[in-house]
Amino acid sequence: MNTYLERAENVLTKINQLAAISEDPSCITRTFGTEAFRQGSGLIQEWMQAIGLQTQADAIGNVRGRLISPDPNAKTFVLASHMDTVVNAGKFDGPMGIIMALDLVKHLKLDKPLPFHLELIAFSDEEGVRFHTTYLGSKVVAGLFDKQLLDKPDANGIPLKDVLAQIGGDADKLTASAILKDDWLGYFEIHIEQGPVLYERNIPIAVVTAIAGQKRIEITFLGMAGHAGTVPMAMRQDALCAAAEFALEAEKLAGSQPDLVATVGKLHVVNSASNVIPGEVVCSLDVRSNDEITLTKAYQSLHQICLSIGQKRAVAINWMLIQETAPVACDPALSNLLAQAIDNSGYDVVRLVSGAGHDAVPISQVAPVAMLFVRCYKGISHNPLENTELTDMAATLRVADLFLQRLIES
Amino acid sequence: MNTYLERAENVLTKINQLAAISEDPSCITRTFGTEAFRQGSGLIQEWMQAIGLQTQADAIGNVRGRLISPDPNAKTFVLASHMDTVVNAGKFDGPMGIIMALDLVKHLKLDKPLPFHLELIAFSDEEGVRFHTTYLGSKVVAGLFDKQLLDKPDANGIPLKDVLAQIGGDADKLTASAILKDDWLGYFEIHIEQGPVLYERNIPIAVVTAIAGQKRIEITFLGMAGHAGTVPMAMRQDALCAAAEFALEAEKLAGSQPDLVATVGKLHVVNSASNVIPGEVVCSLDVRSNDEITLTKAYQSLHQICLSIGQKRAVAINWMLIQETAPVACDPALSNLLAQAIDNSGYDVVRLVSGAGHDAVPISQVAPVAMLFVRCYKGISHNPLENTELTDMAATLRVADLFLQRLIES
Repeated sequence: MNTYLERAENVLTKINQLAAISEDPSCITRTFGTEAFRQGSGLIQEWMQAIGLQTQADAIGNVRGRLISPDPNAKTFVLASHMDTVVNAGKFDGPMGIIMALDLVKHLKLDKPLPFHLELIAFSDEEGVRFHTTYLGSKVVAGLFDKQLLDKPDANGIPLKDVLAQIGGDADKLTASAILKDDWLGYFEIHIEQGPVLYERNIPIAVVTAIAGQKRIEITFLGMAGHAGTVPMAMRQDALCAAAEFALEAEKLAGSQPDLVATVGKLHVVNSASNVIPGEVVCSLDVRSNDEITLTKAYQSLHQICLSIGQKRAVAINWMLIQETAPVACDPALSNLLAQAIDNSGYDVVRLVSGAGHDAVPISQVAPVAMLFVRCYKGISHNPLENTELTDMAATLRVADLFLQRLIES
Repeated sequence: MNTYLERAENVLTKINQLAAISEDPSCITRTFGTEAFRQGSGLIQEWMQAIGLQTQADAIGNVRGRLISPDPNAKTFVLASHMDTVVNAGKFDGPMGIIMALDLVKHLKLDKPLPFHLELIAFSDEEGVRFHTTYLGSKVVAGLFDKQLLDKPDANGIPLKDVLAQIGGDADKLTASAILKDDWLGYFEIHIEQGPVLYERNIPIAVVTAIAGQKRIEITFLGMAGHAGTVPMAMRQDALCAAAEFALEAEKLAGSQPDLVATVGKLHVVNSASNVIPGEVVCSLDVRSNDEITLTKAYQSLHQICLSIGQKRAVAINWMLIQETAPVACDPALSNLLAQAIDNSGYDVVRLVSGAGHDAVPISQVAPVAMLFVRCYKGISHNPLENTELTDMAATLRVADLFLQRLIES
């Protein structure tokens, strides 16, 4: 039997093989429906077949492999992650979860017939780069796909339905690709943390307790432009100072609560010049929390704070909610099983909230979900510097092995 | 004799005639050395000739008209402003000062021979739009022109010396166009305020006591980019929050002193996205004061504050001084004469510091300077909305008339 470190090396070899398949030879880019995507999904399907799974590419291009239970009443437990990437991506975000699931199934020790169907899924599109969407693949599996998206064009005007035809998908059979709500036993995903907490705390893995809900707001501050030399400070309606005050208030509010983050990521001074008092500033606000009440309260507080700043400074505020998703709680029973596996494997049990979204978000609407986070170098992701150590991958495989065994035995 | 309001109407007619000469028929743009510039300077020269001045266009393209004193030891008193404009300019900034000077000379009542040479100058380039310079025209008259500028190209690669040749100037005779230091009696310029103080206080005119010195700084805040959802607030090195804190500190410091303004006018978040914690921000800082010590102290304080913010937030600071000019004090004797003329004309005497630069800045190095500011609508300038009321122009002419009479009599 291979050691977990040897298994981790094999996983890394496959991660590297998949990373070599890219739209751009100078970096890793494998967005939905491209030639690189087709090559990548073909390779994953081969890997699934090589460990004896019954495979198919479904109507949205997900690659799926099943290990069938003899039990006529068996439900389905899914191991999954996504195979698409952002532009100039790292090689672990997505693929690592798929390839570890392959390794877990390959090394599965079955002393008795499998009590549930085990399905391995490589989701076709999670990052949503090509169509500015999210979770195309997992939404189809959850039965939540919005068919209006089929006509949505990419940057070259090609609608999603045409891309489906190109990759052997089928816009008319999306519903048939769903796993029905009653057929789900559960869902398990391994993913890099994409944050710095495990790295800073020097811990290899963590149980995900929830995936944060998010509100994205676009705010316009409309003051009065003026000459930087001739308008006295007391007569100014400086839109940038108003936005600056708001960014610091958002930072302060989020910093006062452990389960809240808030970020002003974009800030644009309209018609800016070094000798002109800013008259108009447009900025983004991203607020996230795992707790719906916290998120809603923070949103309301920040809106109120923003209006107060505007009033105080005679700067008009245009506050526009652009996007919102509700927080998702991971399944307590599955998460406890995962925590026990971590503990029994000799690691500290750390529970984390995921600030980033994952395929587990749509799946959670139809199935109990659990996620295991793996430490990544400095929390860096969506970047060629993204990295996960072999020893951490070995720890992950050890824990996930135990988790799956216990699940089968339970 | 015409009333001052009738004279103001005549001034406005000429302002409109000059404004109609533009590079762009949809707005007012008359930058240095263009065809519109040549037409405009030709018209001004005609106007000078029509009131009996001896005219010439000098080596840098300034249009100059002299009224000669019979006194062999006579010095020269200059009335001036600039004829070039910014792109999409207002019609008053520059031309109003020239055309009012024409009107003043036209209506000069001389009971005795002129005790000094009176020279009217329309400076060729103050705004510096074409060559990214300042005060080309007045620097030549002050004998302060830097000949290295002659090779400086415009946006189309045409060097300044070639433009001089095109407009009948002469790169070899720039020195001869200067008025020697010993020959100066003084300098007087009428200009719109370009700020909101007179508008807000409902006062038509003001004596300028000084022209603010300026320091322009470019600051880079280098933090650490990160995922807006996954990096806890306490682990962030947010470059935008650092810049925001600095902008508010600059606002606060300048607001605490009456003779200081500070402005963050440009702010750019490098590689910004709504879901990315800003890793790098570049911003401008413009600090001005009429008092050299105040300006220097403010500069040092702001630099120290910026470094402290960087240290506190683990954000690296790159502070780069881009440009600096020293404050210029207007001549007390000339300014008092101007204040008396305002008082004797029945207006409140208001003393203002000019936050914007003017041709008086280089001239002040060789001659006593005085300036009269005229209220402009809401302080707006460098904009088609720039406006000055006829009644305010009439008040200006009344005061300037008296000032010139007293100067001649004194």
